[in-house]
Amino acid sequence: MTTFQTPTAADTRADDRLSAMDRYRHVRRHSEELAAPLPAEDQVIQPMPDASPTKWHLAHTAWFFETFLLAPFLPGYRRYHPLFGTLFNSYYEAVGPRHPRPQRGMLGRPTVAETMLYRGTIDRAMEDLVLGASDGVWHRIEPVLALGLNHEQQHQELILTDIKYTLFCNPLRPPYRPDPPPAGPSRTAPLEWIDVAGGVAAIGHAGPGFAFDNEGPRHEVLLRPFRLASRLVSNAEYLGFMADGGYTNPRHWFADGWAMVQEQGWQAPLYWEQSADGSWSSFTLSGMCPLDPDSPVSHVSFYEASAYATWAGKRLPSEAEWEAAAAGGTGELWEWTASPYVAYPGYRPPEGAVGEYNGKFMVNQMVLRGGSCATPPGHIRRTYRNFFYPSARWQFSGLRLVEDR
Amino acid sequence: MTTFQTPTAADTRADDRLSAMDRYRHVRRHSEELAAPLPAEDQVIQPMPDASPTKWHLAHTAWFFETFLLAPFLPGYRRYHPLFGTLFNSYYEAVGPRHPRPQRGMLGRPTVAETMLYRGTIDRAMEDLVLGASDGVWHRIEPVLALGLNHEQQHQELILTDIKYTLFCNPLRPPYRPDPPPAGPSRTAPLEWIDVAGGVAAIGHAGPGFAFDNEGPRHEVLLRPFRLASRLVSNAEYLGFMADGGYTNPRHWFADGWAMVQEQGWQAPLYWEQSADGSWSSFTLSGMCPLDPDSPVSHVSFYEASAYATWAGKRLPSEAEWEAAAAGGTGELWEWTASPYVAYPGYRPPEGAVGEYNGKFMVNQMVLRGGSCATPPGHIRRTYRNFFYPSARWQFSGLRLVEDR
Amino acid sequence: MTTFQTPTAADTRADDRLSAMDRYRHVRRHSEELAAPLPAEDQVIQPMPDASPTKWHLAHTAWFFETFLLAPFLPGYRRYHPLFGTLFNSYYEAVGPRHPRPQRGMLGRPTVAETMLYRGTIDRAMEDLVLGASDGVWHRIEPVLALGLNHEQQHQELILTDIKYTLFCNPLRPPYRPDPPPAGPSRTAPLEWIDVAGGVAAIGHAGPGFAFDNEGPRHEVLLRPFRLASRLVSNAEYLGFMADGGYTNPRHWFADGWAMVQEQGWQAPLYWEQSADGSWSSFTLSGMCPLDPDSPVSHVSFYEASAYATWAGKRLPSEAEWEAAAAGGTGELWEWTASPYVAYPGYRPPEGAVGEYNGKFMVNQMVLRGGSCATPPGHIRRTYRNFFYPSARWQFSGLRLVEDR
Amino acid sequence: MTTFQTPTAADTRADDRLSAMDRYRHVRRHSEELAAPLPAEDQVIQPMPDASPTKWHLAHTAWFFETFLLAPFLPGYRRYHPLFGTLFNSYYEAVGPRHPRPQRGMLGRPTVAETMLYRGTIDRAMEDLVLGASDGVWHRIEPVLALGLNHEQQHQELILTDIKYTLFCNPLRPPYRPDPPPAGPSRTAPLEWIDVAGGVAAIGHAGPGFAFDNEGPRHEVLLRPFRLASRLVSNAEYLGFMADGGYTNPRHWFADGWAMVQEQGWQAPLYWEQSADGSWSSFTLSGMCPLDPDSPVSHVSFYEASAYATWAGKRLPSEAEWEAAAAGGTGELWEWTASPYVAYPGYRPPEGAVGEYNGKFMVNQMVLRGGSCATPPGHIRRTYRNFFYPSARWQFSGLRLVEDR
Repeated sequence: MTTFQTPTAADTRADDRLSAMDRYRHVRRHSEELAAPLPAEDQVIQPMPDASPTKWHLAHTAWFFETFLLAPFLPGYRRYHPLFGTLFNSYYEAVGPRHPRPQRGMLGRPTVAETMLYRGTIDRAMEDLVLGASDGVWHRIEPVLALGLNHEQQHQELILTDIKYTLFCNPLRPPYRPDPPPAGPSRTAPLEWIDVAGGVAAIGHAGPGFAFDNEGPRHEVLLRPFRLASRLVSNAEYLGFMADGGYTNPRHWFADGWAMVQEQGWQAPLYWEQSADGSWSSFTLSGMCPLDPDSPVSHVSFYEASAYATWAGKRLPSEAEWEAAAAGGTGELWEWTASPYVAYPGYRPPEGAVGEYNGKFMVNQMVLRGGSCATPPGHIRRTYRNFFYPSARWQFSGLRLVEDR
Repeated sequence: MTTFQTPTAADTRADDRLSAMDRYRHVRRHSEELAAPLPAEDQVIQPMPDASPTKWHLAHTAWFFETFLLAPFLPGYRRYHPLFGTLFNSYYEAVGPRHPRPQRGMLGRPTVAETMLYRGTIDRAMEDLVLGASDGVWHRIEPVLALGLNHEQQHQELILTDIKYTLFCNPLRPPYRPDPPPAGPSRTAPLEWIDVAGGVAAIGHAGPGFAFDNEGPRHEVLLRPFRLASRLVSNAEYLGFMADGGYTNPRHWFADGWAMVQEQGWQAPLYWEQSADGSWSSFTLSGMCPLDPDSPVSHVSFYEASAYATWAGKRLPSEAEWEAAAAGGTGELWEWTASPYVAYPGYRPPEGAVGEYNGKFMVNQMVLRGGSCATPPGHIRRTYRNFFYPSARWQFSGLRLVEDR
Repeated sequence: MTTFQTPTAADTRADDRLSAMDRYRHVRRHSEELAAPLPAEDQVIQPMPDASPTKWHLAHTAWFFETFLLAPFLPGYRRYHPLFGTLFNSYYEAVGPRHPRPQRGMLGRPTVAETMLYRGTIDRAMEDLVLGASDGVWHRIEPVLALGLNHEQQHQELILTDIKYTLFCNPLRPPYRPDPPPAGPSRTAPLEWIDVAGGVAAIGHAGPGFAFDNEGPRHEVLLRPFRLASRLVSNAEYLGFMADGGYTNPRHWFADGWAMVQEQGWQAPLYWEQSADGSWSSFTLSGMCPLDPDSPVSHVSFYEASAYATWAGKRLPSEAEWEAAAAGGTGELWEWTASPYVAYPGYRPPEGAVGEYNGKFMVNQMVLRGGSCATPPGHIRRTYRNFFYPSARWQFSGLRLVEDR
Repeated sequence: MTTFQTPTAADTRADDRLSAMDRYRHVRRHSEELAAPLPAEDQVIQPMPDASPTKWHLAHTAWFFETFLLAPFLPGYRRYHPLFGTLFNSYYEAVGPRHPRPQRGMLGRPTVAETMLYRGTIDRAMEDLVLGASDGVWHRIEPVLALGLNHEQQHQELILTDIKYTLFCNPLRPPYRPDPPPAGPSRTAPLEWIDVAGGVAAIGHAGPGFAFDNEGPRHEVLLRPFRLASRLVSNAEYLGFMADGGYTNPRHWFADGWAMVQEQGWQAPLYWEQSADGSWSSFTLSGMCPLDPDSPVSHVSFYEASAYATWAGKRLPSEAEWEAAAAGGTGELWEWTASPYVAYPGYRPPEGAVGEYNGKFMVNQMVLRGGSCATPPGHIRRTYRNFFYPSARWQFSGLRLVEDR
């Protein structure tokens, strides 16, 4: 006769570990799958200081686990290479020196194959660590493991945004993938305005489930009534702005934005190119494609998003408005908000080097909300705060309008 | 027998005009008094792109009245010089082209004397305009006149901040004025913490009296309870931060701030110099003076202010907290807040060129509140929003701490 | 009975072609052999604007044959790729637009494998062209073929100098080849001074045999008697200069050289590194090696070479002195001369795009004579004029002293 | 009865001193006369790093006498100001630190009036030194005095070239002098070619009379027969070059020159401006004037001069050719030669700080010969070697053609 046994506490713990490692393997494999279509040559290039080579992303995400989990927690662990700590540190001052960011494209070695070996070694050691950790250790490493996986997911998006820029810098315009871009809606949905009531609302993360430190503390904000657009601004609408002198008339621009327009010679969103016959095409991960007027305009900076909104007689939402209205979710493009990226009331960065993860960037950048086609599945949250400098255009960024009621 | 006559409406209007011109003459004369101690040679120099020559300030403030009042409103007025419109336009795109900002120090002409002639001509024409305007015209020009005078007062402060930097760039370190700096308090007042209750508070300007467009609309904000320091951080306290590795340890800095520390080699606030014996002195408008430990630390950037606050375990106030607590008022130094300079809810810039006054700068800068020893009398308001880039140090800027309750 | 036949004129011509193709294949293969030890990742990198990726050198040298021989002379030839003409044009204005030089490291594609396919296609077409050309065409293409092969040999040296710099930029300091550097002389030969008589001497190329256009016309120069050092300055001697304040005292430097020392922070020749114990090592194609005091000092700029010579109370030779004395020949290192690179009397660049080969660089650069360990065999000539900017250090460059008699 | 006395040796010596001081006063006064038309405001401005403010020239030339004569030779002399040694040192490393060259325009003080006081004090001390020196001292100081006066004459030319550039940077285009420019020839003289025989010729300074160190040693050079143009290239001729695509076709340019054309947007010589009707005018010391087609083209760089000569199928003379042909002398404009500025055979810079006068600039610059309308009378010599970087255009520089025979 067979008896069913109730799972013990130990079993539960083992299950936690096993499922964590499942998730670990899944996330890690996805990074490698993203790099797989690229020849080694493409994976070395850093096309501008803000972007990184694919190969560097692959190594840096391994470095994260090595630095914050293996080195401090796995007994007897020896660093894979004495210089990798420096080479693949992105910006953690507390961890030691680092290779200068603009020099990441000067590194032919480790090669792609050597980088994969490094990742494999880290993966095996992570398995040892997670499955072999005492309960006390597991309690301490579990949040760092979650952070590391979310960190790797952020770099998965950057692998795509950075390689897109890299490929675009090559006059041959090689596609990242052979298949055509996913078909969008046949026609832009009609624009509707969703009424949102004012008053006190709570925003920010609280409760169980992973969130980055900068998503909390959850707190109350005071909102005024407003209307939120039901969809993002489309390419066709943006072409109207351009036709009305959008890039030649300073009137609707911030002074810093207008200076950028002139300095950089911006005449259209990033990746757009005009043929002799006046038609537009844009560079996609599938190569150059005719511009789809019904798709949302993408690869615009905050400056362009703001200028468009002002020209349209509307404005960008604050991040509180965006979150309170529960917009986004679909995640076509990151949506620029009107909110500078600053700490929520009561925010304190975590102790130690991981405290450098988000807090030290809380100046000079703007918040984007939502998520994009390049964001890995499961990485999108309503409270998620993405942030970039207002001049950045190489992310998958668009805009949604708001008007006061 | 003498009879007293009730003043008629016409009398009242005439009184308005006369008192406006009194104020006009008073403000205008003050600008010239500020320049008076300087030889012509000093008045030409532009020591960095963000600062302007004294002579340029004097001409630009005349240009403002000429451009926004005389040219549109004084019948038959002819521009003083066909090129002055270009030379002394600061940043108004709608008004036409302008001399490049970094080239303001390339202009020997108009000379100081010629600039004074220009001012005198503008002043006489303004008298004609104000005293001769119909009621309808007066109604339209009166707010622009008020704006022009407040604008000139802003440049009065800039005359002092810019010339201080200019004189400091000269190894001879010439003083602006012969007399010693005003004596401060003999001892720093003990630091007290003023409790401020949370809740909904209204901030921003409303009602009569002049205010810049960016000070409104008045609106409600939600505050959490906090404690505000009763005074600014002193030099002695800031020396404690320095002694504790303030400028050598990245821990308390924003990433952008730390990059600036390293790039610029910051080791102390602007104008500080250390002798061989380790003692500090600082450059003042009266020349080099021993550093007074009891005076508030000044000429720090937002980055330094933030780093200090973090090091001290406190934070900077938001501008709403600052205004709600009715701090400042004394106006020793402008106080950096934690608030990026953005539009208040419902803000719209005025129509026309004067709409470029404040709105187009609402990105990348931080709000300062209060006022300074260089601010002209009568120019300080509780709702006043000053703003500078977070790296700026040549303003009279300090900091006041806040802690959460 | 067998009869021997005298070779006909046609046979001789065929022999010419066959031997030309032998040489062609030999030179071409050597380029590929130089690239062979490098993983694809290293071949993409452009470590500074003056250097080029290995892969670019391989493609550019194919482009040269395609542009100057196949396109104009091979009937029915179609360009391999419509964009390669732009991508791999180095500096020929007459040939059309070109990819910006500092962006050569942004090209992941063509990949190394694709580049080899390109080379192979060019090679087969060259075989068709050379073996199938009429006598008239052969007469016209033969000098261009010779130029193309010498051009490729120049790039063979650049492949080595550029990859050395690339590998050095990587903190891992990977060696180009696994074997140790060739052993030098066990001891520096004693320095002797070779008397050279003054008077009229003829320098420059004349007669048969390949030479670049800038090596002629042969012409007379007037020399004063001098003494030439029998060998190059050694590392040990250069260390003496350094120990005597060579890099800290401006006295012996040209003003432009001293400015470079300060701006770049030069403290030793390129590739030198000092250990904590004070000993020096240098980066070689075999990786970091202890500095050999008996080897000639290398990777010095003209500025350093001049400063050393002045410090030593000697001077650098003029290129006429160098050539007249028939120095060099051994070709350990390129030797900086005191001669700016200018046209010889009567020099005229060839007509057409190949006229841009040497003539347009005859300003701002200095002549180097001799040859180096990186120069391919058979590419060294007594009349050869190499030239680089006086600040260049990444070539295999050293110096030989001269004194007046 | 009166007897005439033969002058004694002592009398002769006194005469020498008196006539030296006459010349001193004459030269010194001329500098001040050149500055006299300028308001103080103009005298402060440094319009680019290569140029200097008028006031700085006036102070630096006084500093020269103070540093190299008064301080070492006048017993009991105390420096006028402890910081002037630093502020007005141009480039003498051996003399001590110096104010950074690009910061010369940051100095409002000493004012013009204070600078004149400084000059006056130096002048009185120089009188004490010269008239009171023992024979032994006089013997030592006399060559330095001559150098100082020739040095001041060089700065007199720079006062004019630099202020011309400064005034041009002001959109008001103020003239330096009220009177119109001196009338040139009514028509360009016909161009003739003067035959010059080849062979050995001696060039360089020897014998009595002042010359700069770089003009010697006199030495023999080997010349080939050539023909020298009888006059400089005219504006009309240069317009022909422009009409033929001179600034749009890279064909005739050095690569570095063409890069400069594109980077700087050169379309004509410096100071030229084209009206809407296509006519040209140019900025002169008398303000903007219609371009005189018969005047020699001026304010061209070496790059432009070379490109013109190549376009015309001629070339620029070497400095040896120029000197051997005894060209120039009239001194309308400095004439670019094809010769890089290097040491003559056997040249050694003088010992001490004055050895930095010429020798350390002998790289990267090109020789100009002749003299210009801005050169002070008596400062022109057949052996004079002026030198500037090939991109310099703000000197009074033109060109004369040569052709091979």
